[in-house]
Amino acid sequence: MLIRLGYDIEFSLPNPVAVVALLNVHPSRVPDLREPDELRVEPSLAIQNYLDHFGNRCARFLAPQGKIRLYNSTLIEDSGVPDPIQSDARQLAVEELPSDVLVYLINSRYCEVDRLSNVATDLFGSTQPGWSRVRTITDWVYNKVEFGYHHARATRTALDVYTERVGVCRDFQHLAITFCRCMNIPARYATGYLGDIGVPVSPSPMDFSAWFEVYLDGRWWTMDARHNTPRIGRVLMATGRDAADVAITTSFGRADLTRFSVVTDEVKSATV
Amino acid sequence: MLIRLGYDIEFSLPNPVAVVALLNVHPSRVPDLREPDELRVEPSLAIQNYLDHFGNRCARFLAPQGKIRLYNSTLIEDSGVPDPIQSDARQLAVEELPSDVLVYLINSRYCEVDRLSNVATDLFGSTQPGWSRVRTITDWVYNKVEFGYHHARATRTALDVYTERVGVCRDFQHLAITFCRCMNIPARYATGYLGDIGVPVSPSPMDFSAWFEVYLDGRWWTMDARHNTPRIGRVLMATGRDAADVAITTSFGRADLTRFSVVTDEVKSATV
Amino acid sequence: MLIRLGYDIEFSLPNPVAVVALLNVHPSRVPDLREPDELRVEPSLAIQNYLDHFGNRCARFLAPQGKIRLYNSTLIEDSGVPDPIQSDARQLAVEELPSDVLVYLINSRYCEVDRLSNVATDLFGSTQPGWSRVRTITDWVYNKVEFGYHHARATRTALDVYTERVGVCRDFQHLAITFCRCMNIPARYATGYLGDIGVPVSPSPMDFSAWFEVYLDGRWWTMDARHNTPRIGRVLMATGRDAADVAITTSFGRADLTRFSVVTDEVKSATV
Amino acid sequence: MLIRLGYDIEFSLPNPVAVVALLNVHPSRVPDLREPDELRVEPSLAIQNYLDHFGNRCARFLAPQGKIRLYNSTLIEDSGVPDPIQSDARQLAVEELPSDVLVYLINSRYCEVDRLSNVATDLFGSTQPGWSRVRTITDWVYNKVEFGYHHARATRTALDVYTERVGVCRDFQHLAITFCRCMNIPARYATGYLGDIGVPVSPSPMDFSAWFEVYLDGRWWTMDARHNTPRIGRVLMATGRDAADVAITTSFGRADLTRFSVVTDEVKSATV
Repeated sequence: MLIRLGYDIEFSLPNPVAVVALLNVHPSRVPDLREPDELRVEPSLAIQNYLDHFGNRCARFLAPQGKIRLYNSTLIEDSGVPDPIQSDARQLAVEELPSDVLVYLINSRYCEVDRLSNVATDLFGSTQPGWSRVRTITDWVYNKVEFGYHHARATRTALDVYTERVGVCRDFQHLAITFCRCMNIPARYATGYLGDIGVPVSPSPMDFSAWFEVYLDGRWWTMDARHNTPRIGRVLMATGRDAADVAITTSFGRADLTRFSVVTDEVKSATV
Repeated sequence: MLIRLGYDIEFSLPNPVAVVALLNVHPSRVPDLREPDELRVEPSLAIQNYLDHFGNRCARFLAPQGKIRLYNSTLIEDSGVPDPIQSDARQLAVEELPSDVLVYLINSRYCEVDRLSNVATDLFGSTQPGWSRVRTITDWVYNKVEFGYHHARATRTALDVYTERVGVCRDFQHLAITFCRCMNIPARYATGYLGDIGVPVSPSPMDFSAWFEVYLDGRWWTMDARHNTPRIGRVLMATGRDAADVAITTSFGRADLTRFSVVTDEVKSATV
Repeated sequence: MLIRLGYDIEFSLPNPVAVVALLNVHPSRVPDLREPDELRVEPSLAIQNYLDHFGNRCARFLAPQGKIRLYNSTLIEDSGVPDPIQSDARQLAVEELPSDVLVYLINSRYCEVDRLSNVATDLFGSTQPGWSRVRTITDWVYNKVEFGYHHARATRTALDVYTERVGVCRDFQHLAITFCRCMNIPARYATGYLGDIGVPVSPSPMDFSAWFEVYLDGRWWTMDARHNTPRIGRVLMATGRDAADVAITTSFGRADLTRFSVVTDEVKSATV
Repeated sequence: MLIRLGYDIEFSLPNPVAVVALLNVHPSRVPDLREPDELRVEPSLAIQNYLDHFGNRCARFLAPQGKIRLYNSTLIEDSGVPDPIQSDARQLAVEELPSDVLVYLINSRYCEVDRLSNVATDLFGSTQPGWSRVRTITDWVYNKVEFGYHHARATRTALDVYTERVGVCRDFQHLAITFCRCMNIPARYATGYLGDIGVPVSPSPMDFSAWFEVYLDGRWWTMDARHNTPRIGRVLMATGRDAADVAITTSFGRADLTRFSVVTDEVKSATV
């Protein structure tokens, strides 16, 4: 399956401002690209690319005062296979985990493991470890939290999601990630493209999406507490401890968003 | 100058539990060691050493049920020079910073840049960028926050410190770090040994200490909002985004602390 | 001056639910009424009227499942005089305050005097007590907080307003009230009608409004950190410690708002 | 049964400060007094007594700079009967409640009904209304929260108790009160004397205590989520929405506590 990916984002800047953008597909998906995947900027600018601590492809630049447009269009090949299900995936004991995975067990900005640990034990302490426990957590979040774009709030933490029970996709994932970590299951935040391939009804405009990954049985698995059903066509852009690590764009100064559109569409071969 | 370092820590464990310990001196200080620096554990255990994301030396092991003792004693050579002062150290624009330093500008668990950004602008927005701004921030925290061991609370964030104005050393550093980041100055949390060398009065039992580092003029500088005066004999153990990254010990299950003593003493050569 | 007042509010109720409504003008304004001021409800219901702790006129009833409409229209005479200014109004020492005013000095749900006390001392500790201090507080809030209906959030406290610097009218008043209390100036929350009489530009649909009152020189004075200018035509409905005490309607169960309109218009005598 | 009551409290005041004290027994217990119950102050001061909104006996005075001592000793007759149990006490529908009870259903400073409402529904939504539901709530709090004087923190709210699971007696009551209110059961905070009459082991120094009351079947009932067993010899001093309303002493300025002792002892008649 081929998927056309792209975005067209514009900011208005009252002053020059340094920007970091995570707008490329993840290194793990680079082999699948069928067209170049380069961030284009108008006006033209010097862009520095680098990998961050988590292995994500980042671009940084100094944006001048005025309008700045970030855009791109690329083509990627996708397996077309839904998120895998492995019901017997085993929860490793902490001492069995690779050392670089341990960081995904502890507190981060929006995932207060310390404050939700008792709650998680109440809710999930008697569930079966491993895949089944993750499923129970994801079901719980999906069923208890109400989605709504008007609920978006940049400072909402997992504890806030737990008490307010409303949010956008990042909020669902933050709560599920925190519960997993409380139960000693490594969990990390993921952002990327997620279209409506295979989805009967597609009510909302296309957007980047967030999901999460858990480490079971020696590898990472895709989970999504917002949709809670295996999906086709996820294209990973970045992973991190939570949304603080992988903001699509971070502006170190004021930047007013004036346009935002995302494309992620299956492309029939004849029309590429 | 030679400094004798050591610790003797004991936990009581109702169940076996995985532990991560950051009890070694930092790789940057290994060349100064005059004796081996190895975590010793009783009962004897298999210990796995590794470097974390931030370059800290970590040790992990599975502690059995019962008592476990972590201890060590080593000897290190120190310059005996107080923390440097460089009043004209320049604040780099964000676009001039190395990419691996950017992570020290953003939100972390105990440093809510998003929630304190407006406050920091009110308080420090009109100060001179660079060393002087960091000094003003550090003075502010030192003067406004009251130290007290009885004020210790594991979940206290920088915003809590700002409103409560009490805390232990980690709280002072978290608030100062957050204010620096809000002003686009990279700041990171540091833990290590800090004895009373050169200090006229030494009121408290020896303990590990926390301080912080800021990135100015192309390098990291030691700052300490708790003591707010240059000190002799800091021995760095670990750096990270905040205390969540560099806990001395992290137990993935219940562990009750039953003994805790730290030694950090200048040693006259004859007595080594 | 005559002012036509009214509202037309509709809820959809999945189940019968008890409701308390504070939709009458305040007892202090009853002598000014030129038409009856009775809450009308469709379908017709038994309504019980009472005065709460704070002296507000309340109506309570059991609303049946389905649609319920609350509406009224009345006429009130108003002085047409703007909110008074008394620049030399004196701040009474706490020991001079009437006992029933003391409650307006302490913590309430959305006004965390305990958490903002240090901040208030930093910001306002060196200002002149009395009217001038209240003006400085009100100016500060007005200048620092950005108004926007899309910023509405029911759980936002004064501390949240202080950190986020955005909100709707209740948020402005909560922060100003809290700062006043921190400085030992009694302050209470007020709700009522506020039209656009005497206002050159009137950008928003009519709505109920919130303001606040401070106790200086032996009486209560009207203040408004949202508009920060004397206004004509306020018609008080209720006062309390904060918005928790004087919600326009409180439903003890689910109630979905389906219509909400408010009228408050000057009426030329000929057209009454 | 006769109970000797008393207290001896001393503050050191760097400046004159207005103080409000709730140190008398509640008006409902005045008929039981066998000796006068008057707050005595050294140095001697003009004291003004009044009843607050909630019907509590309050004393206020201006304390001069220096040491101030508040003390008293009185004698009260008590039924000697444990807190009543009425397992079939019915939960009234909100529309059946007296109007002056409604205030005990809503948000207050330390009881965030809005933030804990979803949690309460999860935990207690399927329990039997009335006495049984209150018992389930009280049992839950008693079993899940760990008591410790070192856990005292003045700003801890019900939500904090829920996440931290530690606290002193006020914290237990705040959480239980909030859960009751979330379930539409009126609940209020109570302070008073509680000795160790009838208690086999009495480990701690005598102190004032907090408990709470719920409104069922047309009257208020004593509950205690800290002790969770019927007790003998409670002497009520004050009730309010939460601890913010009924602090034993409130100082409107700095006051350092230098002595604090409380007496509440059964007295055999011969020894009166």
